[in-house]
Amino acid sequence: METKQIEKVIIVGSGPAAHTAAIYAARAELKPLLFEGYMAGGIAAGGQLTTTTEVENFPGFPDGISGPDLMLRMRDQSEEHGTRILTETVETISQEGSLHVVHTANGTYRTKALIIATGATAKRLDVPGQERLWQKGISACAVCDGALPMFREKELVIVGGGDAACEEAHFLTKYGKHVHMLVRRDVLRASKAMQKRVLSHEKIIIHWHTQLREVLGETSVSGVKVINTKENKEHELPANGLFFAIGHTPNTKFLGDQLELDDANYIITHNNVHTSKDGIFACGDVQDKIYRQAITSAGSGCMAALEAEHFLSDLSD
Amino acid sequence: METKQIEKVIIVGSGPAAHTAAIYAARAELKPLLFEGYMAGGIAAGGQLTTTTEVENFPGFPDGISGPDLMLRMRDQSEEHGTRILTETVETISQEGSLHVVHTANGTYRTKALIIATGATAKRLDVPGQERLWQKGISACAVCDGALPMFREKELVIVGGGDAACEEAHFLTKYGKHVHMLVRRDVLRASKAMQKRVLSHEKIIIHWHTQLREVLGETSVSGVKVINTKENKEHELPANGLFFAIGHTPNTKFLGDQLELDDANYIITHNNVHTSKDGIFACGDVQDKIYRQAITSAGSGCMAALEAEHFLSDLSD
Repeated sequence: METKQIEKVIIVGSGPAAHTAAIYAARAELKPLLFEGYMAGGIAAGGQLTTTTEVENFPGFPDGISGPDLMLRMRDQSEEHGTRILTETVETISQEGSLHVVHTANGTYRTKALIIATGATAKRLDVPGQERLWQKGISACAVCDGALPMFREKELVIVGGGDAACEEAHFLTKYGKHVHMLVRRDVLRASKAMQKRVLSHEKIIIHWHTQLREVLGETSVSGVKVINTKENKEHELPANGLFFAIGHTPNTKFLGDQLELDDANYIITHNNVHTSKDGIFACGDVQDKIYRQAITSAGSGCMAALEAEHFLSDLSD
Repeated sequence: METKQIEKVIIVGSGPAAHTAAIYAARAELKPLLFEGYMAGGIAAGGQLTTTTEVENFPGFPDGISGPDLMLRMRDQSEEHGTRILTETVETISQEGSLHVVHTANGTYRTKALIIATGATAKRLDVPGQERLWQKGISACAVCDGALPMFREKELVIVGGGDAACEEAHFLTKYGKHVHMLVRRDVLRASKAMQKRVLSHEKIIIHWHTQLREVLGETSVSGVKVINTKENKEHELPANGLFFAIGHTPNTKFLGDQLELDDANYIITHNNVHTSKDGIFACGDVQDKIYRQAITSAGSGCMAALEAEHFLSDLSD
């Protein structure tokens, strides 16, 4: 389908950044069109929050709220204010003069302003038990989930040896009895200060040359099976929590070379949400590898909508 | 009272930035102490949202939520996670070596990290009827309130002649039948582009040399009484909405010369939430004169807490 209509704002994404942008754009009478994608980035519409259970740190919900519920509420709110939502995955974007063009399997859509909020996907290791026990003791976000009661004073395992893994291991010492780091080689890929912090921490036990083989437990994590690749020996570690800290993949593949990306394929933004192209804005985890929280993402979604509104006002002069 | 105890984090403020910082700091086991102030900045604990009625644009609340309700929920959530809240206004801060010291009428408190989230207060004109009709047709935030049903297709009045006033007047044309700008002199203090946009807009009527004298209406705004100061003539304008766009006052007086402020007395931040002093972070409207939204403010509160957590981890090396 080739629509002749020119949209004011198209939003690509379905997490807190996308829907906050939609709420603000809709209230500013920009009649946004939002593409929520169909299992784009391997994640259901709603984004990474749909892969979590309880969210305790989104302000406004003192009793906590489930991730999927929170996203349904945001989606309702977008629609309530007039956002049109299409469940189609954006496959590529292109440019036609000053217009931005969005291509899906079903059609081609033109817009004056484009907001990219496609997020990032946390990497997980595809070992036996991982699927079964996801969010039943397995998490890819220590800051989000570490404080949950199920991890308090328990044996925790974290996979990774980079800066983020070291930081998250350190963070988890606040809650766990011990934190076991599974490191593939015999070195941490982290700053000296961070290495020192982790190596000297009494609660952190580093397992060098060690890889995850299997997650154990029926309804919740009870342990992990690991292999020491130097000695080629498998053994089990009792554990109630498993955290992946092996990085994220920003969902930017569909952008091709249309926008400037950094070395890790995140969209480069300046002045908060501006990208390398006039009229294209980016918000949320697709451009943030530091904070990655629902609330920071939502905040940047608001900024993107307000900046898009400015941009469109300037156009109409 | 002089406490000997050294806090890890003290948070000053009570709006979305302060409470989001508190929720994150508490979950990171930093046991934050939050000073919510007693009518500090002329506003009740809870910040500017307590002066609004319905909030429609905070993501997660599809049916809207009252400003005071939203803030009560955030306050509950802070306490739920272990924040200690004191209803005392911080009068000054000082430095003792690497410690930050907070002074109230009742005591002196020492802390390793300090988060300033004291917000800003929108200026209003103190004319008859203003107090009575506040939030019953009077607002100081067009972006927040302009889309409310009571302003649709109505005569709206905006007070101010600066860049923000022009922008908000333009924004209000989306909703109102006409937008009447009351400008004190015969010139707009705005960029050429902005002036042109306002001067050429068919819905915007500029009243030069004009000042607000009184707001009319019993239970909602029905009009305004204005004076043309050149002709020294009073007259009435029928109107259902009145918007102040005469600036904000950031609540930074208590800081003295402890932190770098900009010309308008906002705290200068770099890398999102860092101030000119190590260990002091700022978030929310006290450092943001661009977006000023509850959700952007909450987002920056989260960042301040995460940066404070980093800072404290580095200290303990």
